[in-house]
Amino acid sequence: MENLVQAYNTTRAHTQNLCKPLQIEDYTPQSAAFASPPKWHLAHTTWFFEELILKKHVTNYKVFDPSYGFLFNSYYNSLGDRIQRGHRGLITRPSVDEIYKYREHIDREMNVLLKNLPSHEVLALTTLGINHEQQHQELLITDLKFTFSHNPTYPKYKDTNYTCKAPKTNEWLECTEGVFTVGHTTDDFCYDNELGAHRVFLEPFKIAKDLVTNGEFIAFIEDNAYKNPKYWLDNGWQWLQNNQISHPLYWKSINGKWHQYTLSGLQPVDLEAIVTHISYYEASAYAFWAGYRLPTEFEWEIAAAQLDWGMAWEWTNSAYLPYPNFKIAEGPLGEYNGKFMNNLMVLRGASKATAANHSRHTYRNFFSPESQWQFSGIRLAK
Amino acid sequence: MENLVQAYNTTRAHTQNLCKPLQIEDYTPQSAAFASPPKWHLAHTTWFFEELILKKHVTNYKVFDPSYGFLFNSYYNSLGDRIQRGHRGLITRPSVDEIYKYREHIDREMNVLLKNLPSHEVLALTTLGINHEQQHQELLITDLKFTFSHNPTYPKYKDTNYTCKAPKTNEWLECTEGVFTVGHTTDDFCYDNELGAHRVFLEPFKIAKDLVTNGEFIAFIEDNAYKNPKYWLDNGWQWLQNNQISHPLYWKSINGKWHQYTLSGLQPVDLEAIVTHISYYEASAYAFWAGYRLPTEFEWEIAAAQLDWGMAWEWTNSAYLPYPNFKIAEGPLGEYNGKFMNNLMVLRGASKATAANHSRHTYRNFFSPESQWQFSGIRLAK
Amino acid sequence: MENLVQAYNTTRAHTQNLCKPLQIEDYTPQSAAFASPPKWHLAHTTWFFEELILKKHVTNYKVFDPSYGFLFNSYYNSLGDRIQRGHRGLITRPSVDEIYKYREHIDREMNVLLKNLPSHEVLALTTLGINHEQQHQELLITDLKFTFSHNPTYPKYKDTNYTCKAPKTNEWLECTEGVFTVGHTTDDFCYDNELGAHRVFLEPFKIAKDLVTNGEFIAFIEDNAYKNPKYWLDNGWQWLQNNQISHPLYWKSINGKWHQYTLSGLQPVDLEAIVTHISYYEASAYAFWAGYRLPTEFEWEIAAAQLDWGMAWEWTNSAYLPYPNFKIAEGPLGEYNGKFMNNLMVLRGASKATAANHSRHTYRNFFSPESQWQFSGIRLAK
Amino acid sequence: MENLVQAYNTTRAHTQNLCKPLQIEDYTPQSAAFASPPKWHLAHTTWFFEELILKKHVTNYKVFDPSYGFLFNSYYNSLGDRIQRGHRGLITRPSVDEIYKYREHIDREMNVLLKNLPSHEVLALTTLGINHEQQHQELLITDLKFTFSHNPTYPKYKDTNYTCKAPKTNEWLECTEGVFTVGHTTDDFCYDNELGAHRVFLEPFKIAKDLVTNGEFIAFIEDNAYKNPKYWLDNGWQWLQNNQISHPLYWKSINGKWHQYTLSGLQPVDLEAIVTHISYYEASAYAFWAGYRLPTEFEWEIAAAQLDWGMAWEWTNSAYLPYPNFKIAEGPLGEYNGKFMNNLMVLRGASKATAANHSRHTYRNFFSPESQWQFSGIRLAK
Repeated sequence: MENLVQAYNTTRAHTQNLCKPLQIEDYTPQSAAFASPPKWHLAHTTWFFEELILKKHVTNYKVFDPSYGFLFNSYYNSLGDRIQRGHRGLITRPSVDEIYKYREHIDREMNVLLKNLPSHEVLALTTLGINHEQQHQELLITDLKFTFSHNPTYPKYKDTNYTCKAPKTNEWLECTEGVFTVGHTTDDFCYDNELGAHRVFLEPFKIAKDLVTNGEFIAFIEDNAYKNPKYWLDNGWQWLQNNQISHPLYWKSINGKWHQYTLSGLQPVDLEAIVTHISYYEASAYAFWAGYRLPTEFEWEIAAAQLDWGMAWEWTNSAYLPYPNFKIAEGPLGEYNGKFMNNLMVLRGASKATAANHSRHTYRNFFSPESQWQFSGIRLAK
Repeated sequence: MENLVQAYNTTRAHTQNLCKPLQIEDYTPQSAAFASPPKWHLAHTTWFFEELILKKHVTNYKVFDPSYGFLFNSYYNSLGDRIQRGHRGLITRPSVDEIYKYREHIDREMNVLLKNLPSHEVLALTTLGINHEQQHQELLITDLKFTFSHNPTYPKYKDTNYTCKAPKTNEWLECTEGVFTVGHTTDDFCYDNELGAHRVFLEPFKIAKDLVTNGEFIAFIEDNAYKNPKYWLDNGWQWLQNNQISHPLYWKSINGKWHQYTLSGLQPVDLEAIVTHISYYEASAYAFWAGYRLPTEFEWEIAAAQLDWGMAWEWTNSAYLPYPNFKIAEGPLGEYNGKFMNNLMVLRGASKATAANHSRHTYRNFFSPESQWQFSGIRLAK
Repeated sequence: MENLVQAYNTTRAHTQNLCKPLQIEDYTPQSAAFASPPKWHLAHTTWFFEELILKKHVTNYKVFDPSYGFLFNSYYNSLGDRIQRGHRGLITRPSVDEIYKYREHIDREMNVLLKNLPSHEVLALTTLGINHEQQHQELLITDLKFTFSHNPTYPKYKDTNYTCKAPKTNEWLECTEGVFTVGHTTDDFCYDNELGAHRVFLEPFKIAKDLVTNGEFIAFIEDNAYKNPKYWLDNGWQWLQNNQISHPLYWKSINGKWHQYTLSGLQPVDLEAIVTHISYYEASAYAFWAGYRLPTEFEWEIAAAQLDWGMAWEWTNSAYLPYPNFKIAEGPLGEYNGKFMNNLMVLRGASKATAANHSRHTYRNFFSPESQWQFSGIRLAK
Repeated sequence: MENLVQAYNTTRAHTQNLCKPLQIEDYTPQSAAFASPPKWHLAHTTWFFEELILKKHVTNYKVFDPSYGFLFNSYYNSLGDRIQRGHRGLITRPSVDEIYKYREHIDREMNVLLKNLPSHEVLALTTLGINHEQQHQELLITDLKFTFSHNPTYPKYKDTNYTCKAPKTNEWLECTEGVFTVGHTTDDFCYDNELGAHRVFLEPFKIAKDLVTNGEFIAFIEDNAYKNPKYWLDNGWQWLQNNQISHPLYWKSINGKWHQYTLSGLQPVDLEAIVTHISYYEASAYAFWAGYRLPTEFEWEIAAAQLDWGMAWEWTNSAYLPYPNFKIAEGPLGEYNGKFMNNLMVLRGASKATAANHSRHTYRNFFSPESQWQFSGIRLAK
């Protein structure tokens, strides 16, 4: 209990810390339907606590502002109409200041509630809300980077540029065949999509101990792989053509030298750092070009204990689908994960932008195969 | 000269006055490719003076910030690359404060220049820049209204709601046939599209002394005219279907009563006020339904001296095309008007959002036939 | 009367003659929403006589096939629902043979009707139907050419390649200022859009006696004019970029030499022939590049008696708008022309594909400014 | 060998038999990018034998027509450029007659080759070509149905309406847990995507012995399930909204009674027949609404021996992904299957339109989740 209150307050404070380097002007604009503004992240995570906990579990609770349900609901059909996804950046009012007041208000109410012997349901929902807010902390960073990248002045967010590297081992981890249990089995928190633990049979496989580096990826570019359909899935090849893609997101060649926009501004590409901002299509093409393949999410999960991970979300070759016995909850929580299990690929691991202690071996992240704006990278298997 | 300095300073101050009611958050977001953010209007009008006057007519002039040319050029191909039109709302930096400093800096430089016996060319360009800024004053208001209208909280900009009405006369002004000169003929300022004064022959016509009111327009709606293709141009009918249009922009029926979003918030529609936020397609359909037609721009110009006008931009049935002997200037100024003479319709008059003394009988405003976001209304002819 | 019967039968036979070189396979497919298949043209022109004349003026007339009203109505809202415009090529049944039977049937009925002292209304409608069919004769050719052009085997339709040339005079016709009457004034047939004859004042102008040739147009291409925004209307420039246009429709450079697809197959471009398959945007850019302008439709009409014309439809700089006192007829005929008076440009003259005796000085043809698939060319003015 | 020659000739003849009821007009038009015309199917299957066998394995083979490689290549990047997929319906020439001559020619050449002790490679390629042609036999039927369905006269192809039913058992097959081998393991023909046989662990499951009937599906419609987002995947819900889907493809309510377009024309929906022309989104929503789920492709494969199947392709809840050790062949055959393993779902079984002996337990069919035009149905699992 103590721990939960503390986790709540720490998480809430951390979100606001992430916003410290922002100017007021940075909080509102939206650069793509998939990328929400900082103000919206601040408000939506707060609305989650108000809508799912306070409104139901505090007697006579009075909502902070009746318009916020419409403004800050993300995608919950069961919670009513909401602003069109691509219009989140048009909400100039309420002001940033009002949103911070909203956060204060909800934090006060949540602290009162949590200190008064809350029910198991409230505790569980609070834990979910904390994890939900951690997910948005990462999105806040990646969405901000996407918006800043449209500005030719290359704004700097922080001194940290979020680039990662590790000593190169060039080694493969060998895994033997067998029946393994995958999915979440302990009492700790997990998302519903990790439940339905079940057995899988894995044929023997090897998985790389290293992630692919920028230098290695440049060899792929220089081999004209972006121009050769044979390495690409058909949809990936269409995506390249339609969007004229010829390098990872945020890269730019200046006088023949690769640079990339980072959260510290435009910088030369570090050849030894791991490549990120890679779509599944690029990851898949790279693996094919290199003579290997991507691991499945189950191979990754079984190998994870013996791998160093956490530098980038790692594309797997598994589609995001329900586990056997996956249950969709009644009500709005049933919309959290299940309805997205279509045409998305699973990523495993975590990135430098992921909240501390947020990920685990069974964690299933998922994005559409053309997504590049996450810190997503490549680990090979064979 | 004195007058010009004063006109310059008054105009520049007025733009900033229009922004007084704004919060910092209101300055940046963009709600449509055609509607620019306030910060962009503030900067672009300033860039116009810097780019076309200071850079060329001040010795050793040093540009305020080299990135501003890319950020705040609107559509001048001859002045180089520029940010994509729909991305103007992503420029969170420079901050609002920096843009105000930019304005101060340019104002200081312009005042120095104007006080030192500037050339005729500088005077002419300054006059153009003032008129250019006045145009953007109106756009600033209409673009802001468009953005605010996407916010379900219906933000209030000012107490003034920009609605107009005048006593109804139900009279027609009769005009006799003859050869008339149209276009600008005095030495006062005008845009290049008004030059090339020339003679036209007008058959006898009658033009309404009143503009169409909201009450009259509601009769059109209640006659199911939005559902009857016979009143509509074919393109207009497609536009209705594709966008599910069934009333003027900003209107909303609440419990069977028409309301409209105004710059003072959501208000009941005033039946005696003139109808505004009407596309050409709607104006044309209304005229056909009522048994009349829209005037041509030349009929309007010849009748203007005997009409009360200035409450709304009035759609004419004239396409925006060059006058005989219209000359396209060399260099960037040639891009000001001429290249838009295609698929647009001419509006005459002025609206309540138009800068004082900005319009005149020969003034040619122009928008695409589906545009609704201007204060545009209907005057009938027969 | 005799003449009308003869005109009817001649016109009907001519349409079928145009189809003689076709294979059955050529009759059905549709290559663009704007380009209808031959079978559809054959049936639609027939439906016009059945729907507007026989159904109303023959007692107890029984329609040939009740489904044809849906299949072969083009755009008449007042005559009911109809197949989506882009789906005309999916009507594999009725067969070509059945459509020819339909034509025979209607021809028989029309001949009976016309031989029995028909009313003035029937005579007028028959004349309209003949002219309507003549319009479709030209469209049949241009639409077929568009479809064939998508076939890399470059099918040959006829030995005639529809290319035109005339001796070059390099002369200008000078026209003096004055008040002129434009529009149709005789009792001969004309379309409703030519009525409302009225006076216009024309300033003095000069109009070229020649049309622009392929050789002259190649100079425009070789001056990189397709890459220089300064010659183009803004919409034209967007059109170039979005569609990657760099030469007239049907042109193709083979080993550095310009070829064009013609109705006789792929052939080298004849430098002395007039340029055709030119959009208004290209015509306008060419005129600007050459230091001239396009004539207005009224200048063209007044000069026409002294010009050689008929080799290509000539783009004018006039938007397609109603004449003063233009009346929209009640019922379906009101939809023939009036509802298209928006965002289109007027072309004057006639082309080699135009039916004999179909055009006249007052004739107003009209297409959207990006249309290239007609035999459209350029005459300059100044 | 004898058998192979016979299989070749039987298959080739069957394709032509399928076309017997067609009129010449039916052979060419194309109703969607995904649905090819009969003439194209006839030619493409023939080109496959010419391109992959005759050109490489007959000395001095002279191609029948050099333009056919461009016209009839489907998607093989390694075999050169080809006509845009949506333009297949514009190929009016070569005529239907010429394509039949092409088929005769290739058949003659193939028979000669096959009778002269061909290499193992030729035999394997011939077997592949036969299976390829069988796939196109089914597509020929489903694509034709799609085209005919756009014709409001509802053309009849055959007396057979391709509807299936079986006595209803309401029983479930129970399957116990265990490690199973999936994928092709015998020497018989299979596609590359079935190779890489491997072991999977299956948790215990039950699978329905019956397919869902039209009557059962109508209960889903009548429960307003098409209007309730809670049953739908998020992408499915978008698909419904964007395309205004409210029932299976080809269904139409006439006076409150469901009818469907069949290959025998428009007919009342048979409540006891199985539902077909269902997208994965509809199958998934139905299963959720009914309280069950779809089987995975491995569950299906393991249960298949004890199921009656073959009435409809059955959507599984498995994404189309490579098996472990899946190998992509060198050259054009590597493009046959592998590059499509993205954003598609696996279907198992066969339909009434599938060629006899074409399917098997390990067969993996695959379509995008919104595809409705195949004879696709629903089998439930739990």
